[in-house]
Amino acid sequence: MDIVEEALAQHAAWKGKLAFDPKMAIDDRHDLAVAYTPGVAEPCKVIAENPEAAYEYTIKGNTVAVVSDGSAVLGLGNIGPAAAMPVMEGKAVLFKRFGDVDAFPICLDTQDTEEIIETVIRIAPAFGGINLEDIAAPRCFEIEARLNDALDIPVFHDDQHGTAIVVLSGIINALRLTGKDTTARVVVNGAGSAGIAIAKLLLSYGFENVTMCDIRGILSSAYEGMNDAQRAMLAATNLDDVQGTLADAMAGADIVIGVSAPGAITGEMVASMADDAIVFAMANPTPEIFPDEAKAAGARVVGTGRSDFPNQVNNVVAFPGIFKGALQARAERITEPMKLAAARALAALVSDEELREDFIMPDPFDPRAADAVAAAVRAEA
Amino acid sequence: MDIVEEALAQHAAWKGKLAFDPKMAIDDRHDLAVAYTPGVAEPCKVIAENPEAAYEYTIKGNTVAVVSDGSAVLGLGNIGPAAAMPVMEGKAVLFKRFGDVDAFPICLDTQDTEEIIETVIRIAPAFGGINLEDIAAPRCFEIEARLNDALDIPVFHDDQHGTAIVVLSGIINALRLTGKDTTARVVVNGAGSAGIAIAKLLLSYGFENVTMCDIRGILSSAYEGMNDAQRAMLAATNLDDVQGTLADAMAGADIVIGVSAPGAITGEMVASMADDAIVFAMANPTPEIFPDEAKAAGARVVGTGRSDFPNQVNNVVAFPGIFKGALQARAERITEPMKLAAARALAALVSDEELREDFIMPDPFDPRAADAVAAAVRAEA
Repeated sequence: MDIVEEALAQHAAWKGKLAFDPKMAIDDRHDLAVAYTPGVAEPCKVIAENPEAAYEYTIKGNTVAVVSDGSAVLGLGNIGPAAAMPVMEGKAVLFKRFGDVDAFPICLDTQDTEEIIETVIRIAPAFGGINLEDIAAPRCFEIEARLNDALDIPVFHDDQHGTAIVVLSGIINALRLTGKDTTARVVVNGAGSAGIAIAKLLLSYGFENVTMCDIRGILSSAYEGMNDAQRAMLAATNLDDVQGTLADAMAGADIVIGVSAPGAITGEMVASMADDAIVFAMANPTPEIFPDEAKAAGARVVGTGRSDFPNQVNNVVAFPGIFKGALQARAERITEPMKLAAARALAALVSDEELREDFIMPDPFDPRAADAVAAAVRAEA
Repeated sequence: MDIVEEALAQHAAWKGKLAFDPKMAIDDRHDLAVAYTPGVAEPCKVIAENPEAAYEYTIKGNTVAVVSDGSAVLGLGNIGPAAAMPVMEGKAVLFKRFGDVDAFPICLDTQDTEEIIETVIRIAPAFGGINLEDIAAPRCFEIEARLNDALDIPVFHDDQHGTAIVVLSGIINALRLTGKDTTARVVVNGAGSAGIAIAKLLLSYGFENVTMCDIRGILSSAYEGMNDAQRAMLAATNLDDVQGTLADAMAGADIVIGVSAPGAITGEMVASMADDAIVFAMANPTPEIFPDEAKAAGARVVGTGRSDFPNQVNNVVAFPGIFKGALQARAERITEPMKLAAARALAALVSDEELREDFIMPDPFDPRAADAVAAAVRAEA
């Protein structure tokens, strides 16, 4: 049985991947009186007087909503809210398994920016955080920004920032390995939500020379049809306003990060890069360039999104710990310093002795990851 | 430690009464590939082609949203969504404990009818049913009716219909005991959501002579300031258009059902009723009249909402089984025949040998209740 058949059979057997279990036994009238009426009235009264007490007496303090409109689900695209549920349930499973954070999947029957925003605001009281998931660009930018302004709980679009944090952690370790530093020339191929978030976080980290490309070439003043988020990136990227193709951008570059399309990067492009080139090819399931080909073309460090190659960029090492730390600190936002601290904490999990070309990222099952990230986020909060 | 102190201490220890637990272990890359990427794409694709498959592959088939706006919470009134959470979590606990139905509390940061309706419609894809809870009258009537029209999953306001079903089950057994029948004269005191739902279900069951009262007296053509729901009841209740007070209504009546206020019914009023009078005094925690006083005044059967007196009207014997049966049948609504069948099934759990003045309702912990109700609902679906 291949993985597809096995997954379908298992999903049918599970009938949903989450169960909602009481934390207490309800075996007699006394139990009922303590957990429900009349006893339950007391925590209600305490919260009515002091809303902050919800963190003490309800699920809020450890519960995250995984919210999607089903518009950009994995590689499947706009499949709608019902079909997105298996992914959102899976995400909730990972929150619990890796971060001990309770998460609940909310799939919205609307793809309208205003309706998504107002709906999330209205359901927010039960939750200590909102994980936006698989919402298409550019609406995801506005939704995240406006929800963060409207709510006093953190709102975090994992496809953007989780990916960016894990990529940065890998880049930090690739710098350790190659002796390069933040003067390295970086090309980000793909100017959607993940690419923009990666470029932003690299700039926050201190990279000075970042160029973004998408399928039509280098983002520059001459590039027509950019959305607001892409246009805003021009203020800090491609400072010499170079125009041309991805191949032009990659010539002489130190680092290329692909969040684009299968086969988008050729061996020739990699061969044109500087010595000790660093290549992250994260299109899934087929990367922009396969690791063997990139290595043969001269790349020293190669990462992908796949678990069957070394250096998998897997958000699961980041998001459970990020929310765990933010919830523990009751942070109102996941700030840029928190993201940088999380990336540094992940990078530091790979010791000098362990660090190799094919081991720059902690394993997705590294039991230290969530707590290391949570501690870093808490310390910045 | 009294129950109030114990409840507060326990709620602080629990930090929320529900945990969301994965149904599978995620111990290695293979597990991850089956429950999440890439395997999860397969059930997504199947649901995208056939939305009904969500019942097979996601939590939808066994998951109910417990939705409140916090406007009419227990005896606490309008305490808002955050303070309502302990009650909604408790309700979710009871769904699982008694019906093996997964339930998730959604407390809405709005008390606007239109906003509540559109929000519930937008979050509905994840859920197989909607349990409305502690939403004030009269908005609860419109919200329930319009959501049932808009959605293809059942929407059920438990404060109305759950209460009505359990009351009817008790009345059915009180008729068995007293030899009365549906020609009996019934007075319902309290014309809010529960009172109206009780009166409606009694009429559906076949009672011919039902009169409603509220704090200002008998609902009649002369009663000013009725809401739409109350006005609609006049077509089928108080057919002789009697005017007056609760005392006037109760003189000679066979059955009085109080969902009103502590002390609203006096011993004199009970004494004025017909022989073998049946009194349900369900104001909580202090009933309209205490059982001892009602008995002394001549009542034969007395029920309350309290667990420390016989014949407790407790919704927990109804709602878990009602949703369990509706989910199993994939019913689009909880219909009037389903409610009547549920009440009959509950009444039938008390055998002829067991039936006594102080035992007309199954115990809240009766392990047969949920399955008996579910089977009855399923049979009507």
